[in-house]
Amino acid sequence: MEHAFYPGSFDPITRGHLNIIGRALGLFKKITVLVAVNPHKTPLFPVEETKEIIRTATRSWAQVEVDSTEGLVVDYARKNGIYTAIRGLRAVTDFEGEFAMALTNRSMEPTFETAFLMTDSDYMYLSSTLVRQIAEQGGDVGKFVTPDVERRLKEKFGYI
Amino acid sequence: MEHAFYPGSFDPITRGHLNIIGRALGLFKKITVLVAVNPHKTPLFPVEETKEIIRTATRSWAQVEVDSTEGLVVDYARKNGIYTAIRGLRAVTDFEGEFAMALTNRSMEPTFETAFLMTDSDYMYLSSTLVRQIAEQGGDVGKFVTPDVERRLKEKFGYI
Amino acid sequence: MEHAFYPGSFDPITRGHLNIIGRALGLFKKITVLVAVNPHKTPLFPVEETKEIIRTATRSWAQVEVDSTEGLVVDYARKNGIYTAIRGLRAVTDFEGEFAMALTNRSMEPTFETAFLMTDSDYMYLSSTLVRQIAEQGGDVGKFVTPDVERRLKEKFGYI
Amino acid sequence: MEHAFYPGSFDPITRGHLNIIGRALGLFKKITVLVAVNPHKTPLFPVEETKEIIRTATRSWAQVEVDSTEGLVVDYARKNGIYTAIRGLRAVTDFEGEFAMALTNRSMEPTFETAFLMTDSDYMYLSSTLVRQIAEQGGDVGKFVTPDVERRLKEKFGYI
Amino acid sequence: MEHAFYPGSFDPITRGHLNIIGRALGLFKKITVLVAVNPHKTPLFPVEETKEIIRTATRSWAQVEVDSTEGLVVDYARKNGIYTAIRGLRAVTDFEGEFAMALTNRSMEPTFETAFLMTDSDYMYLSSTLVRQIAEQGGDVGKFVTPDVERRLKEKFGYI
Amino acid sequence: MEHAFYPGSFDPITRGHLNIIGRALGLFKKITVLVAVNPHKTPLFPVEETKEIIRTATRSWAQVEVDSTEGLVVDYARKNGIYTAIRGLRAVTDFEGEFAMALTNRSMEPTFETAFLMTDSDYMYLSSTLVRQIAEQGGDVGKFVTPDVERRLKEKFGYI
Repeated sequence: MEHAFYPGSFDPITRGHLNIIGRALGLFKKITVLVAVNPHKTPLFPVEETKEIIRTATRSWAQVEVDSTEGLVVDYARKNGIYTAIRGLRAVTDFEGEFAMALTNRSMEPTFETAFLMTDSDYMYLSSTLVRQIAEQGGDVGKFVTPDVERRLKEKFGYI
Repeated sequence: MEHAFYPGSFDPITRGHLNIIGRALGLFKKITVLVAVNPHKTPLFPVEETKEIIRTATRSWAQVEVDSTEGLVVDYARKNGIYTAIRGLRAVTDFEGEFAMALTNRSMEPTFETAFLMTDSDYMYLSSTLVRQIAEQGGDVGKFVTPDVERRLKEKFGYI
Repeated sequence: MEHAFYPGSFDPITRGHLNIIGRALGLFKKITVLVAVNPHKTPLFPVEETKEIIRTATRSWAQVEVDSTEGLVVDYARKNGIYTAIRGLRAVTDFEGEFAMALTNRSMEPTFETAFLMTDSDYMYLSSTLVRQIAEQGGDVGKFVTPDVERRLKEKFGYI
Repeated sequence: MEHAFYPGSFDPITRGHLNIIGRALGLFKKITVLVAVNPHKTPLFPVEETKEIIRTATRSWAQVEVDSTEGLVVDYARKNGIYTAIRGLRAVTDFEGEFAMALTNRSMEPTFETAFLMTDSDYMYLSSTLVRQIAEQGGDVGKFVTPDVERRLKEKFGYI
Repeated sequence: MEHAFYPGSFDPITRGHLNIIGRALGLFKKITVLVAVNPHKTPLFPVEETKEIIRTATRSWAQVEVDSTEGLVVDYARKNGIYTAIRGLRAVTDFEGEFAMALTNRSMEPTFETAFLMTDSDYMYLSSTLVRQIAEQGGDVGKFVTPDVERRLKEKFGYI
Repeated sequence: MEHAFYPGSFDPITRGHLNIIGRALGLFKKITVLVAVNPHKTPLFPVEETKEIIRTATRSWAQVEVDSTEGLVVDYARKNGIYTAIRGLRAVTDFEGEFAMALTNRSMEPTFETAFLMTDSDYMYLSSTLVRQIAEQGGDVGKFVTPDVERRLKEKFGYI
């Protein structure tokens, strides 16, 4: 397969996400990181900043592109002719939600395929939500995100 | 047992719910689908419309009745003298929540019994929440709900 | 539904199994406890003794019968015209195995239905295997089985 | 170890929490029940009332203290020099969240240790959220909380 | 990625395995189905027959090869220069074992990657073990395996 | 608490076990590693060698003792007056078995307490079984066990 996309909220992108992208580059020639905008949630970072953050974090990988969509992921797939999605697997509860999402996507679009890659054990319980919670209370998130994201979180929560 | 009830939010009723009702009719002579109103949530469909939708979806089954309650399910059970609830089982995370609810109900009312039936594998990851999310973004939910529900969802979200 | 069966190994029957039978009698008029013989395993108690033990343990319930089968449970269902099985649910790992078994049975015989009942929290982690292990090492299993079973286990393992 | 703390929301404290505290007193000489304030949630009881409720519920144990923090639990640990946390384990979904939290805390503060104790099977599915839901609808929560908490819940929800 | 392998026991290959192979062919140009021989288990079918069965079942796919190994899967990967394995995901308990295996392989060979694909919901609880058990008792396994495998199972267990 | 014991098979002891012992020494003044002999299983290493291996692996910790028992762990607890057991938690399936064991022990001996500590994420899926399987096939287990255990495994399986 030449081209796959990696859908998610990435609010913000973590070292766990970057670990998955690096692994996926061993399997696919091109990866589009797709920021899926949830119309019911106000993200910590606006979608354009999220895309800029991802571009910065992945700038050493020429094969990575960044895009966003406000609609269904299957509609994005159809419009762009990319029918393979990548998802990182972390823990059991994760798996259930991932399963539901992948089966639903497949149900709506039979050619849609999801390839799951396993995060390194260091990132197995890391999530963007956890990062936001720790950063908000002034905790050190240097192990979980890149320096750029760390700085933006500090600014966002008034610690610099 | 003659009579059981099937409590839930049914916002909206899915083909998975209907699959469970059909199965339950092999075990019980009469089933009351009980719309349990959560005072803290604003449902997509008002409770009266939800009841109407369920009546339409189950109209071919003479043994199915529809009711609603704003109180505890155990209080409904006591008032109506029906001590058997039906619940559909889908996946592991489901099971935990179902277990907590059933044990709590039993703890408050020892004669209360919950019989779990297994959804067909086609509906194993289907939920009302998923249906609402897909419908809101204009996705096709024809595989997940009846034509009547599909039409109401389209109207609700401004697609017709 | 008038008649259901409760398949299992029951080697030996525990208070958890009896708890499920008692609950099932609130839903069904007649329950057949079905000892499913596994041709690859040598049980602790021979099948005839297992049936005798179950008859003794359930003798206060007139609506309970005991039977055994060496074949598939679905074949027993077809031969006897009883298409509803009861199973107790205990914990998550349980649920997965139960799910596989119930879906397989349904796949071979579409009219086959499995109704799951929840064990009391006191028996939630109790199993025949655990009982055999404790009894073998001379531990006290009085909380887990009836006095008749306790005595037979002691004899079996040379403690009386 | 001499001193451990037991962090949580305790909104309100349940018999399950008290069961864990009683067990922890067999392992540690002193326990600080730590009310962790979530700046994004409005609790049912204000933090000062929550602390008063816990003091009342634990008054027979001289070795129990009550405190609160608005920051990260690891920061509280560092400031107070107590590096052992106690957590109760209930069910699988619980375990995942607990795992994520414990690994995150350890990642930020390597000397931080979490000791998990198992709740009695009677309280295995009990949670403060469940208690609030039942109390709000006028249900009987006497089995789940102390008489003091029961009375306060009734007042809160206008039942006395 | 050009070439991946799909390790397993395949004793015998099921429609679930074939479903995964079909999906994997959308992602990879060539798939080697790798029969991993466990020196401690006597399989129902000898390894050479298993390979022949797989060749028959996959003969319509020119891009599928069949091989076997008695050693570690990572050693096979190194010898053949194929560092991507495919595995099917079915249910939660599956996931745990798969996770352990994938992390262990990665720990021994950092370039080793495992891509997980999701089985169709129809095959979600299907396993070779289940198939063997049903076939042994004369049950109908036509929904679970190809006609060739069905015939061989019947011969094996003396039903034809 | 002064003294706790850590029961298990330890066939052989892994870096994951040693990680748990090191953590437990932050909570308890003395730890007895208790080799629980299963009369139905033939271990890879005889019990006396297992004890010698553990003594070697823990020789830098003066507070660690090694013992073995052929009976129930609760009987060992009663005879030695140590009522606190330590167990490592790894993953979900683990948790279920641990829960059953801990509840059973508590049911037979109410003063018995089990404190669960979390393994480092590096060892989260490591088990003695996995180590034996890899070593048997000549794989490198240097990351999973101490050099002494690695050498003994190589001898055992004829690789040196």
